[in-house]
Amino acid sequence: MNFYSKLQKSWKQSNSLVCVGLDPLLDKLPLHLKGHKKPLFEFIKSIVNLTAEHVCAFKPQIAYFSSQGAETALEETIAYIHEAFPHIPVILDAKRSDIAMTSEQYAIEAFDRYKADALTVVPFQGTDSMRPYLDRIDKGVILLCRTSNPSSADLQDLEVDGEPLYRIIAKKAVNEWNTNGNVSLVVGATQPNHLQEIRRLVGHMPILVPGIGPQGGQLESTVLAGMDSLGAGLIVSSSRAVLYASSEEDFAERALEVVLKIKNELNFHRQSFLKS
Amino acid sequence: MNFYSKLQKSWKQSNSLVCVGLDPLLDKLPLHLKGHKKPLFEFIKSIVNLTAEHVCAFKPQIAYFSSQGAETALEETIAYIHEAFPHIPVILDAKRSDIAMTSEQYAIEAFDRYKADALTVVPFQGTDSMRPYLDRIDKGVILLCRTSNPSSADLQDLEVDGEPLYRIIAKKAVNEWNTNGNVSLVVGATQPNHLQEIRRLVGHMPILVPGIGPQGGQLESTVLAGMDSLGAGLIVSSSRAVLYASSEEDFAERALEVVLKIKNELNFHRQSFLKS
Repeated sequence: MNFYSKLQKSWKQSNSLVCVGLDPLLDKLPLHLKGHKKPLFEFIKSIVNLTAEHVCAFKPQIAYFSSQGAETALEETIAYIHEAFPHIPVILDAKRSDIAMTSEQYAIEAFDRYKADALTVVPFQGTDSMRPYLDRIDKGVILLCRTSNPSSADLQDLEVDGEPLYRIIAKKAVNEWNTNGNVSLVVGATQPNHLQEIRRLVGHMPILVPGIGPQGGQLESTVLAGMDSLGAGLIVSSSRAVLYASSEEDFAERALEVVLKIKNELNFHRQSFLKS
Repeated sequence: MNFYSKLQKSWKQSNSLVCVGLDPLLDKLPLHLKGHKKPLFEFIKSIVNLTAEHVCAFKPQIAYFSSQGAETALEETIAYIHEAFPHIPVILDAKRSDIAMTSEQYAIEAFDRYKADALTVVPFQGTDSMRPYLDRIDKGVILLCRTSNPSSADLQDLEVDGEPLYRIIAKKAVNEWNTNGNVSLVVGATQPNHLQEIRRLVGHMPILVPGIGPQGGQLESTVLAGMDSLGAGLIVSSSRAVLYASSEEDFAERALEVVLKIKNELNFHRQSFLKS
């Protein structure tokens, strides 16, 4: 089963557009877990177990594992999700960029070593640099298009013949890079007008949306701007607000509350929209 | 000592513009090393020991370690270079890109965990995404500007108000991002006209040049186009041609021959130029 199909099934089964980002830092874990033999993994496992029913995807961010020398925790995290919740796609957020020969190694890292279902990739180096990912037809390739951070405008909004760079990327994604039907885009929730414009260009292509909550993106505008015509198409990611909802022993229950709140709010807005 | 100073000293001491890229793959190692307890590290150590006198930098490429689960080999590699050849800067080639909060973790990975002197970074997400690297004033931040691969033109050559994107990046690097004097650029050897144009824009800023040899870049045009007015400014990287010069027990000696050939040819061209 390829990434699109897995995601479609997961959207349906969970009735949720929520993706939980897994960015664990030892310093921020509940005190009672810090002495555990595998603190990061135990923390994530608890969050995953309680929230799985209500998410369409999990998204571990590799930097948080790499900075702590926690490659094993990342391997165990993804293996655990595949074993316990085999229908939920795992997106490895690593934003890779390099020449093809090196991208080949990053593809091995993401898809063979860590067994991710999809990988985030920076399109800055052009078509050939992405080929090793695009050629993995069973895997998702999620390209940065218009990111959620304030300075994303520095380069992504520059106009080329009257057209901003992010729009050129969205068009290339549809017209050139998606020949294997495995491309998705990253578009931040912080600029709903960009999200809407990109949705119009890409049809039903899945869009991973970071930037809600602490970064300022609103749920209503995200749904209205980003949803496809069937009321799906969005992977709305939340990390910190979910992971650190509580620093006490009830952290996983509180994480679930946050996930449910986002899930329900997103569903409320998409149902209102679909009815209208 | 910051990255610029360390590099300046290393250029002088080695009288060399050559950087050896460390991209080891177990499959490609000489047969007699494959049974070794630490084959990647032993391979690299032999190459490093023989070539150190004639290089201005070493550049491990993280993808080759990550794909093989060889984080320990990467840690040992950089620790070994710092111990045995403390004057030679180590550039971690990882081409990171993310929002600031996550870049902070990548900075910890590169500079605190692996103890690299410099890191390659993709500027696609703009100023705030690079801040955690730029703020490390003792470390080098080497930004992709115009890469060596054929498809680099896809986005990097797009014209914004008559100016290609790579030129905008070079100007921002000089005028906005280099406030701490720690920015360098990546410009491929495959397009000497771009290299020359960028050199004119950036003064003495160091330029890391991949793409010689197998990728097609020529040494003479690299020197003529990319050298600064003092005959330095270039970190010319070669990986495969050096590492896999021989698959026999003489691999390190043969690697040295390749390094010497590149060093001498680069020096011949820069001396001819400086005399003229």
